[in-house]
Amino acid sequence: MSERISIVERILSSNDKLAEENTARLDASKVLAVNLMASPGAGKTSLIEQTLPLLAEQLRVAVIDGDIATSIDADRASAAGAKVAVQINTGGECHLDAVMLQQALTQIDLSTVDLLLVENVGNLICPAEFRLGTHQSVLIASIPEGDDKPYKYPGMYRGVDALVINKIDLLPYIDFKMDYFQRGVEALNPGLVTFPLSCRTGEGMQTWIDWIVQLVRE
Amino acid sequence: MSERISIVERILSSNDKLAEENTARLDASKVLAVNLMASPGAGKTSLIEQTLPLLAEQLRVAVIDGDIATSIDADRASAAGAKVAVQINTGGECHLDAVMLQQALTQIDLSTVDLLLVENVGNLICPAEFRLGTHQSVLIASIPEGDDKPYKYPGMYRGVDALVINKIDLLPYIDFKMDYFQRGVEALNPGLVTFPLSCRTGEGMQTWIDWIVQLVRE
Repeated sequence: MSERISIVERILSSNDKLAEENTARLDASKVLAVNLMASPGAGKTSLIEQTLPLLAEQLRVAVIDGDIATSIDADRASAAGAKVAVQINTGGECHLDAVMLQQALTQIDLSTVDLLLVENVGNLICPAEFRLGTHQSVLIASIPEGDDKPYKYPGMYRGVDALVINKIDLLPYIDFKMDYFQRGVEALNPGLVTFPLSCRTGEGMQTWIDWIVQLVRE
Repeated sequence: MSERISIVERILSSNDKLAEENTARLDASKVLAVNLMASPGAGKTSLIEQTLPLLAEQLRVAVIDGDIATSIDADRASAAGAKVAVQINTGGECHLDAVMLQQALTQIDLSTVDLLLVENVGNLICPAEFRLGTHQSVLIASIPEGDDKPYKYPGMYRGVDALVINKIDLLPYIDFKMDYFQRGVEALNPGLVTFPLSCRTGEGMQTWIDWIVQLVRE
């Protein structure tokens, strides 16, 4: 398998170069970009949907949605008030990469945008390996996924800048040990900033919104 | 990227050859093997845990657990009564492949087993592309993942022989349109045998158990 590994390494390194170009392009237009990652159904699209109206008066937000099929996500982001929503269909690929982001960026007038939310493909493994050139990586966990996920998907938990814990409204109905979950997170990513919230009830959303606004203003 | 694609094709084709060898090996020992796939936290391990005691008096069951880290799953399967539980740590790989299954099979005395449950890595995309040589593929969906998953992950829904819909006890607390979900499934995989159930309450488990027992007896 060594041939395969060396090819993958070359792809990763050329990806990193393109990621740096993406960062430079975003910086030139003073756009802060956030890469949202999660397993399928943790609530990436819901979080974007709930976040957009709460930012509407303060920031101009663009959304790029990655998915292996359909444009459901971009449609939802658009309906929720994104200034522009671009759908990337990866054609079966299990993650976004820097080439895909580069292409999507050509469809956005960055001079009219303050914040770019990038919704990665629903996958708790592969997206962690591909830098996009975004400034911040946020992982969205969710209560029904179970409290053992940091232990089982360490690569993802290790590499992110912030953690959203979604669907806390389901805590009464699910055996989820928050202590056990948070011990796992702390071992992999000490001091990780964490936002427990519910996209369904709105609980905890404001702290998340404040964090984003502060990031953009910095 | 054509170089990468041709390499991947060669890997897939050599994987298929090994998958056929795995099938032949299982057949020689009259072992029925089921590949369980799902996104992280849909309930693969819980389903195995609830299934094992219900099969204990009828079938001798071995479990192979694939995970990128930890041996939590094999420990749980072992505690739940698996005759033998083998953990495969993929070392970061996002799916099981036929080589990994082949290696795990060497650790099981197949002559003492009727049924082999293979728990794939938690991922709704990549495992669909790698045949293992098992006889049946089962996808475990879960209510909190949302009703749009067939539309967004068509490859996985298209390729399986049966579908478990887990966590139906959470239906009262989640906006999940079963009609919409099932229309998506039907379009991709017409007539797919489906088992709505709850690993937590036990509701619906017996129909699933009957189906497995019948598969082994056939």
